[in-house]
Amino acid sequence: MKRRTLVAAAGATLAAGALSGCKPQASSDCVASAQQQFNWKMVTSWPKNFPGVGVGAERFARVVEEMSGGRLKIKVYAAGELVPALEVFDAVSRGTVEMGHGAPYYWKGKVPAAQFFCALPFGPNAAEMNAWLFKGGGMQLWEETYQPFGVLPLLCGSTGVQTFGWFNKEITRVEDLQGLKMRTPGLGGEVLSKLGGTVVNLPAGEIFTALQTGAIDAAEWIGPYNDLALGLHKAARYYYTPGWQEPNVTFELDINLKAWETLPADLQAIVRAAAREVNGDMLDDYNAKNMEALETLRGEGVEVRRLPDEVLASLRQAAAEVVEASAAADPQAAKVWAAQMAYFKRLWAYAEVAERDIYRIRE
Amino acid sequence: MKRRTLVAAAGATLAAGALSGCKPQASSDCVASAQQQFNWKMVTSWPKNFPGVGVGAERFARVVEEMSGGRLKIKVYAAGELVPALEVFDAVSRGTVEMGHGAPYYWKGKVPAAQFFCALPFGPNAAEMNAWLFKGGGMQLWEETYQPFGVLPLLCGSTGVQTFGWFNKEITRVEDLQGLKMRTPGLGGEVLSKLGGTVVNLPAGEIFTALQTGAIDAAEWIGPYNDLALGLHKAARYYYTPGWQEPNVTFELDINLKAWETLPADLQAIVRAAAREVNGDMLDDYNAKNMEALETLRGEGVEVRRLPDEVLASLRQAAAEVVEASAAADPQAAKVWAAQMAYFKRLWAYAEVAERDIYRIRE
Repeated sequence: MKRRTLVAAAGATLAAGALSGCKPQASSDCVASAQQQFNWKMVTSWPKNFPGVGVGAERFARVVEEMSGGRLKIKVYAAGELVPALEVFDAVSRGTVEMGHGAPYYWKGKVPAAQFFCALPFGPNAAEMNAWLFKGGGMQLWEETYQPFGVLPLLCGSTGVQTFGWFNKEITRVEDLQGLKMRTPGLGGEVLSKLGGTVVNLPAGEIFTALQTGAIDAAEWIGPYNDLALGLHKAARYYYTPGWQEPNVTFELDINLKAWETLPADLQAIVRAAAREVNGDMLDDYNAKNMEALETLRGEGVEVRRLPDEVLASLRQAAAEVVEASAAADPQAAKVWAAQMAYFKRLWAYAEVAERDIYRIRE
Repeated sequence: MKRRTLVAAAGATLAAGALSGCKPQASSDCVASAQQQFNWKMVTSWPKNFPGVGVGAERFARVVEEMSGGRLKIKVYAAGELVPALEVFDAVSRGTVEMGHGAPYYWKGKVPAAQFFCALPFGPNAAEMNAWLFKGGGMQLWEETYQPFGVLPLLCGSTGVQTFGWFNKEITRVEDLQGLKMRTPGLGGEVLSKLGGTVVNLPAGEIFTALQTGAIDAAEWIGPYNDLALGLHKAARYYYTPGWQEPNVTFELDINLKAWETLPADLQAIVRAAAREVNGDMLDDYNAKNMEALETLRGEGVEVRRLPDEVLASLRQAAAEVVEASAAADPQAAKVWAAQMAYFKRLWAYAEVAERDIYRIRE
């Protein structure tokens, strides 16, 4: 299940007990572990060289290799190379590979609470989700949720605000969503269903053709950066904002707990820091590249439209009911959602005199 | 200027040329450098155990030590222990110490362009500043600005939105700022001066007494988290928001370039990643703790007031003139500001359909 190569270099011998808990001060142990080479596999939910999230996963592996001086090498596999996109969590849980990268809501069928760590319609933005995860008890709940599966989750990527997506007809009333066949996953998809739409699940590579042939009426993918790469603007006329369904999506590293315990303390610290570093870098990347891509799309004649307030109000009401019902269906999901509701209510009250007000005073 | 201890452990000998450019794949060099111990000093602009930014600086040193398995130890010095708070940059530039942590605008007297990397009145928030620095060419300009001083800057901390501060009289018209003696630094202070106020510079430890005795009429420090720690609410009645003068303040690591070049590649990667990891963690910390502290302050009867729109409009106009004049006074500052203006204009247009709209649709 795991390949480790022990490199006994420069005459050093491997000390017993160096496999775990190597403390920074215990120099003789550390020297021993410093000689040990780990070669890990990381499966992902992303196509090869995929902008944003896929680049971020590859960046994580590179940063870890640089920081560890090559002692921890992580080979990154695109979706389907070793396991299909949506079986990343399973592969890590079983120990087929040491590590995976994906979006928590991909495994909601197996872990219903997972999607609450991922994206909440009309929910927190990236900074708010980060504050809850790292300073409000969120990471502990996430670890508790995955512990029965032998998986350690680490936050490793945020998209920031997404868009509502691509349409070939105008949305002027909430009734326009009825009968709409749309590609949109997660809780947002359930909201659309509740309002009479039909959710169609398609992997990235099939969205363009489905939209162009009329097999679907609309498609939500990520945002301008990724959408431009798929060419969706060539198959649809209107680009609707804002991405009420995903004010942020988080991505996770899944680490097999048994594999994790074989890493010495310094490599564990490197993996943790790299995950968080990539989380920041990916958000910066999305903010910058989404901006550039939206300029390109507008230049090519795409009509960027905002959903009418009345439609957003209906969506918000439906979203509240969907999230509530989804949380109620699973005890761990209910626990996570209760903690989030309490925390975000407080954080949003603070945002009123802080982050939010900064946007107002710019005018 | 620098103390290095070479630890030849486990029988390994130090290979020639291991001091710089150790490539991850070059295992014999890496093993050699893996034995080398660096003991660095980091001076800071912060009192001992200072909440938020001070804790962040200490966290940086700890994370680096953990990731390096103790090979790079950084001893953190509070303001005044080795050098005064505002002489951190100088000490690093001269090579008195290898590293420092402070706020760029503290050395605007020596490097006029520095404050443009720090805080801009009515300017970008933390996420926007990060996007410009890492994806919009900002870091390159920052490095270029400090290069003549032999200093490498790394972003290492963000406060997020601050507050306008503590007042004992109400601000209902812009005329109420005339004659006001206020502790507020940087470009925000210059804006206050332009509108008839008097800027008083005081270190953290003297603000409370000055406010209580009436030596100053008002004081801006950071935000609820740090302000509560100083007890400013016991010396003033009104707490005004929003922090138009500092929608975000960035903190920097200053690294002596000659010292930097002695680090092997893996330790350089560790320092870079730790700085960025701390940047994320500090923002999360401020968001969470500011929220909690504002609840505490409100519970103790503090009156949180928003500046009237009319006053904010006058401040915005004055701020535009102050920033423009400040940029025009120095060629490098002018270059940085021109790049920022162009970038943030584009980013703000994107925010209108993304981050900003998410706040609107929550209602």
